[in-house]
Amino acid sequence: MKIDGTLFRSVWVDEQDGWSVRILDQTRLPWSFDILRLTEVEAAAHAIRAMQVRGAPLIGAVAAYGLALAVRRDPAIAAVEAAAAMLAATRPTAINLRWALDRMLARLRPLPTGARAGAAYAEAGAIAEEDVAQCAAIGRHGMALIAEIVARKPGQPVNLLTHCNAGWLATVDWGTALAPIYAAHDAGIALHVWVDETRPRNQGALLTAWELARHGVPHTVIADNAGGHLMQHGEVDMVIVGTDRVSRNGDVANKIGTYLKALAARDNGVPFWVGLPSSTIDWSIADGLGDIPIEERAATELTTITGRALDGSIATLRIVPSDSPAANPAFDVTPARLVTGLITERGCCAASAAGLASLFPEHG
Amino acid sequence: MKIDGTLFRSVWVDEQDGWSVRILDQTRLPWSFDILRLTEVEAAAHAIRAMQVRGAPLIGAVAAYGLALAVRRDPAIAAVEAAAAMLAATRPTAINLRWALDRMLARLRPLPTGARAGAAYAEAGAIAEEDVAQCAAIGRHGMALIAEIVARKPGQPVNLLTHCNAGWLATVDWGTALAPIYAAHDAGIALHVWVDETRPRNQGALLTAWELARHGVPHTVIADNAGGHLMQHGEVDMVIVGTDRVSRNGDVANKIGTYLKALAARDNGVPFWVGLPSSTIDWSIADGLGDIPIEERAATELTTITGRALDGSIATLRIVPSDSPAANPAFDVTPARLVTGLITERGCCAASAAGLASLFPEHG
Repeated sequence: MKIDGTLFRSVWVDEQDGWSVRILDQTRLPWSFDILRLTEVEAAAHAIRAMQVRGAPLIGAVAAYGLALAVRRDPAIAAVEAAAAMLAATRPTAINLRWALDRMLARLRPLPTGARAGAAYAEAGAIAEEDVAQCAAIGRHGMALIAEIVARKPGQPVNLLTHCNAGWLATVDWGTALAPIYAAHDAGIALHVWVDETRPRNQGALLTAWELARHGVPHTVIADNAGGHLMQHGEVDMVIVGTDRVSRNGDVANKIGTYLKALAARDNGVPFWVGLPSSTIDWSIADGLGDIPIEERAATELTTITGRALDGSIATLRIVPSDSPAANPAFDVTPARLVTGLITERGCCAASAAGLASLFPEHG
Repeated sequence: MKIDGTLFRSVWVDEQDGWSVRILDQTRLPWSFDILRLTEVEAAAHAIRAMQVRGAPLIGAVAAYGLALAVRRDPAIAAVEAAAAMLAATRPTAINLRWALDRMLARLRPLPTGARAGAAYAEAGAIAEEDVAQCAAIGRHGMALIAEIVARKPGQPVNLLTHCNAGWLATVDWGTALAPIYAAHDAGIALHVWVDETRPRNQGALLTAWELARHGVPHTVIADNAGGHLMQHGEVDMVIVGTDRVSRNGDVANKIGTYLKALAARDNGVPFWVGLPSSTIDWSIADGLGDIPIEERAATELTTITGRALDGSIATLRIVPSDSPAANPAFDVTPARLVTGLITERGCCAASAAGLASLFPEHG
């Protein structure tokens, strides 16, 4: 996507040296636009753990490139497997991380040692390119859903609501939840996006709003508390979110609070759609609520906040008194029964085992 | 309630001069403990509008005392009615404001001019004392509900979840939602309170957590997004909130986001109770969702935040980029069908016209 006229992706190989990995430091956005250079697998692991990169598809791609950095340093399979294990342990909920590392290892294991570095970069590059193509396809399929709403209310903008950031910053390009929004906007469909702030890390207000503003998509930031009220009053035509892991029966793990919006959508007859590349599906899990591990993150994400002071400086404040403890579960699971459908690179389907099997029969 | 061993209420008449009105500046809590002195009705109106005092029962009491300040300055009925109209216009959603002013005017109108000032202070004092007694009664009735949960899980602490602040800071003393919690805690019942941060003004993290910490009640602050996940995993035995207005059929207006928690409670079989004095019931409204006005507050409540810097100073940061607009509806309406019951000063009842009529037959 373009930033002030220049095309960017969220991860790429440095064009000068041809091997170091470039990312945007998403912990600094939107206050500061910093491009980081990763030269060691440990830096890639840190970037994922500290959420300099986040979003299920993107952390899969960065893990793949991180493993390429490890292979470049030491292509012996034991070292590569140790690096993959370190990367896999950085975050527990998003399945794309494990999927990308498994794919990399499957590609690298059979190769002679000397062939692994080149193959690792090629495979990581393929993962990234496939993600871009899949997100573009999600955009096309999701845009058809938005166009159906336009047909029902011609001449009025379509109001969408999204939670967290599932835009191009969460993938390699285009996004999952935001890909249909970008596609529809680019196709001339009038729309407006309610952007959930998304406490405690505020990825909605900081990343989604920034993305949408850069692309010129009309939007309004709201507190996470406000979506239900807006749906009660007919102000939301469709909810669309991304996901960190979908079970094979269609349960959807996503940023904490997604479940509450799905409940409100159901209560008000608002369609609730989830955009995802198939790498986000965990075919090994049937019960999302019971079996998807939910990351508990540091309480400081809730008790402190960073922003811009009046003088332009970036500062951090404590916003919960220090004698009150805080808890910070980072994800929740929306049961499949609350999900209108899934938007994948192969098209839309019901959030169910049968729905997923219809699009992905090879996993049946 | 006690703060560091000293008994406080949230509003009182100055003991030295016998007429000025004292409040705690709740916009400064918990970072600073400032007692304000109100000497003019305009200052009382500002205190309500700027949310130096908030909480439906408390703004009723402060409006009553504010009117007493107006009467002291000019007891002519035209001046008193103009002052009441100004006070009534400060905030639209909480009905207690209008209820208290109507009660004051009904008391003052028939009196000779010279008798009005004394009567105004007496009536405002009566409103405040009745609120304290009613909240204490809500505490007793609500404690019985908590005791029932204890009976079902002996030896384990009861986990409650609350949204916003409906503690003693929201009333004259004791609180509505928190009164049963204080009563149960004081009676030796082991409990733990999940405190919703309550964006955008963070009254949960700033006021409820502070109140509970001062009183020694175990609690944990969570993002507003987290309650559904906790309920899915059996971590919440009961939700208890306050309200700004209840329609005569039991619809509940309360801080934005309450509706989302009620949906999650229903989806997980968690009881959802609402504590209120009867002054919060609007007998003139049957359809809460259609007829209760919802205040839209300034976007800056969402786009900026105040907290404590590392150096101890209090600072304000921008936390939404300036090129993204924001919307800030302050309340939502939870339909009666999602409310397990209402806890009033006369006891508990179903959230329905029949339930309310059973406790308040005089309004039948």
